[in-house]
Amino acid sequence: MSLVIVGSLAFDTIETPEERKEKIVGGSCTYCSLAASFFTTPKIVGVVGEDFPQETIDLFKKRKIDIQGLEFAEGKTFHWEGLYGHDPNQRKTVKLELNVFADFKPQLPPDYKGADYVFLANIHPELQEDIRVQFTNPEWMAMDTIAHWIENNRETLLQVLEKCNLFFCNDEEIKLLTDEVNLLKAGKKILEMGLAYVVIKKGEHGALMLGKDLVFGVLAHPCEEVVDPTGAGDSYAGGVMGYIAMTSSHSAQTIKKAVVYGGLVASFLVEGFSLETLKNLTLDNVEKRKNIFRSY
Amino acid sequence: MSLVIVGSLAFDTIETPEERKEKIVGGSCTYCSLAASFFTTPKIVGVVGEDFPQETIDLFKKRKIDIQGLEFAEGKTFHWEGLYGHDPNQRKTVKLELNVFADFKPQLPPDYKGADYVFLANIHPELQEDIRVQFTNPEWMAMDTIAHWIENNRETLLQVLEKCNLFFCNDEEIKLLTDEVNLLKAGKKILEMGLAYVVIKKGEHGALMLGKDLVFGVLAHPCEEVVDPTGAGDSYAGGVMGYIAMTSSHSAQTIKKAVVYGGLVASFLVEGFSLETLKNLTLDNVEKRKNIFRSY
Repeated sequence: MSLVIVGSLAFDTIETPEERKEKIVGGSCTYCSLAASFFTTPKIVGVVGEDFPQETIDLFKKRKIDIQGLEFAEGKTFHWEGLYGHDPNQRKTVKLELNVFADFKPQLPPDYKGADYVFLANIHPELQEDIRVQFTNPEWMAMDTIAHWIENNRETLLQVLEKCNLFFCNDEEIKLLTDEVNLLKAGKKILEMGLAYVVIKKGEHGALMLGKDLVFGVLAHPCEEVVDPTGAGDSYAGGVMGYIAMTSSHSAQTIKKAVVYGGLVASFLVEGFSLETLKNLTLDNVEKRKNIFRSY
Repeated sequence: MSLVIVGSLAFDTIETPEERKEKIVGGSCTYCSLAASFFTTPKIVGVVGEDFPQETIDLFKKRKIDIQGLEFAEGKTFHWEGLYGHDPNQRKTVKLELNVFADFKPQLPPDYKGADYVFLANIHPELQEDIRVQFTNPEWMAMDTIAHWIENNRETLLQVLEKCNLFFCNDEEIKLLTDEVNLLKAGKKILEMGLAYVVIKKGEHGALMLGKDLVFGVLAHPCEEVVDPTGAGDSYAGGVMGYIAMTSSHSAQTIKKAVVYGGLVASFLVEGFSLETLKNLTLDNVEKRKNIFRSY
């Protein structure tokens, strides 16, 4: 069934203790849609400036990603600069240039409106809400966010969240959102808002998925060299949503499998710079790692 | 085969955000031997003062723990006072009264010396070394420690460690010991010292076991209410060592199963005050949780 992914397309400048990459293509929608494309043919909603590389647009087309909802605006593409320390779980935003995102007023193309599955990837909660209301009757909606919006736009964020079926977050974000350090309790608070599932990503420790009467844990694939964690969370969600859309099911059994696949896709992402990795990754690689993953 | 456990017997004063418990029975040897007693009949080495309760001695006897190596000294039992914050993974030592431990010069009873399995639970590394050399030819030796000894007695600790087959630590301790933030790399550094396995406990995130060409991950049983984490690590190790001694095997397959059992025993411990929990826990409870644990 059809999946629409809404999010950012960006240039990322990334500095890790080992190297610095200037303005490489990134963005939540970019990572998420490429990850989802292993399982389904997502439609995307976002905005890019005149400087966004044709090569990436060609990659979207090659992966059969529908770009009707992608706006090509005058000006520069959104630019984020981040700094990772010795601990790859901690990052600092050094610079944030909204550029074309500043005036983005998304309009869903007509044949996006009836989408069955909707994923609101990380962007400003106001934008998530503006887009959300344009869908006629989605069967299943999920969202992601970051600590920045929880701290600064909590009210709008909660408004979007309570319309969702599934929430993706990391441990830090859910603690911040619920003011609860225990992840089971924090997850239950989210479920009490009416959501069916919460997926709490825990970096190297894997993920915890909670639903009504359901606790499901997944280990992370062991990784010795975290090259760049940017996009891992987005590709995690993309893998999960792609798998759900592919199977056209949101039973607990499907979501469990989807969470395993999402984690596997993300495990490749942290081992290199994300777009390069997503370009070269195949579903066959993912399946192979699934087998290794199961055996340990 | 025979298992000797060396460690502390103590009074613990524990303050958590919810309550304060004055001088309840604790100590690494206490927790560890009671946990191991679900699987085998351990022999213990340690020292208690005149104030140590007969009730606990009776509990050891009831659980068929051999107390020939337990010295009853004049004076007071070792006393530790600790404070847990909102995050149960962080604790502060408020007071440490060595008492009878200050002059403890352990002598192994003759029929302990030929032990097949030896576990050096957390005590001063000098004491671990003094006792270690008294064993004639143990088949398999393991140790545990805490950050305090890594910071203050690193050299002696490493001397004991390189004679061991298995090292129990938590994520904080192994990072401190190896100066390496990635747990796989940190674990490999320990294996390079000649050990066969390292078990890295990660609290609510479970445990990671590393061996030559082996990475094995275990999820922690989900827990909403951490009442008191004291003794969880000791009972974890006790469960593992008890299981290994029971099966008389230290194949990778056995150690994997042992690590699962150790985690299960420890999962009960954090849910209450440890000695009370260990008194009431049965192997049947543990087995039942194993089934729940597998299904999620």
